[in-house]
Amino acid sequence: MFVTEERWQKINQVLANRTKFITVVLEDIYQPHNASAVLRSCDCFGIQDAHIIENKNDFNPTKGVTIGADQWISLKKYNKSDNHNTEQCYRYLKDHGYRIIATTPHEDEVSIDEVSLDQKTALVFGAEYTGLSDYALENADGYAKIPMVGFSESFNISVGAAICLYELSTRLRKECSAWELDEDEKLHLRYKWLHNSIREADMVEERYFSDQE
Amino acid sequence: MFVTEERWQKINQVLANRTKFITVVLEDIYQPHNASAVLRSCDCFGIQDAHIIENKNDFNPTKGVTIGADQWISLKKYNKSDNHNTEQCYRYLKDHGYRIIATTPHEDEVSIDEVSLDQKTALVFGAEYTGLSDYALENADGYAKIPMVGFSESFNISVGAAICLYELSTRLRKECSAWELDEDEKLHLRYKWLHNSIREADMVEERYFSDQE
Repeated sequence: MFVTEERWQKINQVLANRTKFITVVLEDIYQPHNASAVLRSCDCFGIQDAHIIENKNDFNPTKGVTIGADQWISLKKYNKSDNHNTEQCYRYLKDHGYRIIATTPHEDEVSIDEVSLDQKTALVFGAEYTGLSDYALENADGYAKIPMVGFSESFNISVGAAICLYELSTRLRKECSAWELDEDEKLHLRYKWLHNSIREADMVEERYFSDQE
Repeated sequence: MFVTEERWQKINQVLANRTKFITVVLEDIYQPHNASAVLRSCDCFGIQDAHIIENKNDFNPTKGVTIGADQWISLKKYNKSDNHNTEQCYRYLKDHGYRIIATTPHEDEVSIDEVSLDQKTALVFGAEYTGLSDYALENADGYAKIPMVGFSESFNISVGAAICLYELSTRLRKECSAWELDEDEKLHLRYKWLHNSIREADMVEERYFSDQE
């Protein structure tokens, strides 16, 4: 009644393609346009959850990032402690059954197209210049990199993350099952997204409930 | 003698992975950081040739783009005429056996992972806001888009091009043969790259040839 038929269909179509099987972790990405670009890629490839670690350190004096892109993506932030935010994020992910894959050039690295999807997978991306923290590297369950054959040896974080998410999400949909959200998760997001789609949603809600009284 | 053993090996390793089977066309990309990012992706994925079309029109008043990234990539520019630069580029590509694939949302579109690689392929990317010109769209041999399942309906040009090049170049190396450069092409590039790698190469050359006299 308050959104167009087209909008309603779009919401349900997006929901049908959303997954929490793959998730994204950003550790100390302090350039807002980079973080925003990664979240846009999450939306495009149907990745629902992003975990944002904000450590305070000498290399990254900026206090935090305000990201406007959480309208369609569920963000979980870790910024309460001075040094243990990455640890808290990793603990949360392991408790929820994720294998943690750090994206980095590393001697044990595997190519992103060889990363196994037999378990829920969290892809961790590090800061623009300093890369991932020692803790993030040492406590990962595995490593991945994008195969490159040129003189350049790295991508911008927004480009690198987009390629990794394209590769894994395409493979997930082709090869795996049970990656969809469950009905409870869909219900919760449908409500949130409808709320985002309706102008003055709070007022509409208020009127609806006062009409019921 | 004038470059390290490591550099020499790197040059030959990059050469072994270079291809002209896939090529990139940029039509009126006037933001230098976007054009540079696409050329960096070309290098990373081993795409040797990039075709740069610079039409002058009301939407893009900037006269042209100076790109510093042509050190490792071979650029061919089309900017001599007022209106027919795209036509000249397409004619060149068709004369050289390329199938031209315009990347755009279009009713006949196919997903980038379904683009056939049974023929040399040129991927065309359009301007940041206005997209590809009518001529570029109407005279393409086919269309491709990146499959997206979220609310966002487009990528930044640098992200979109990187995903397309990752997808096609990965598939090319896995599934196709005869994509490598021929010996003449390798010889020519090896010379150019060595030249780029040696400081004061011209002086070294001059000394070498004067020693031969």
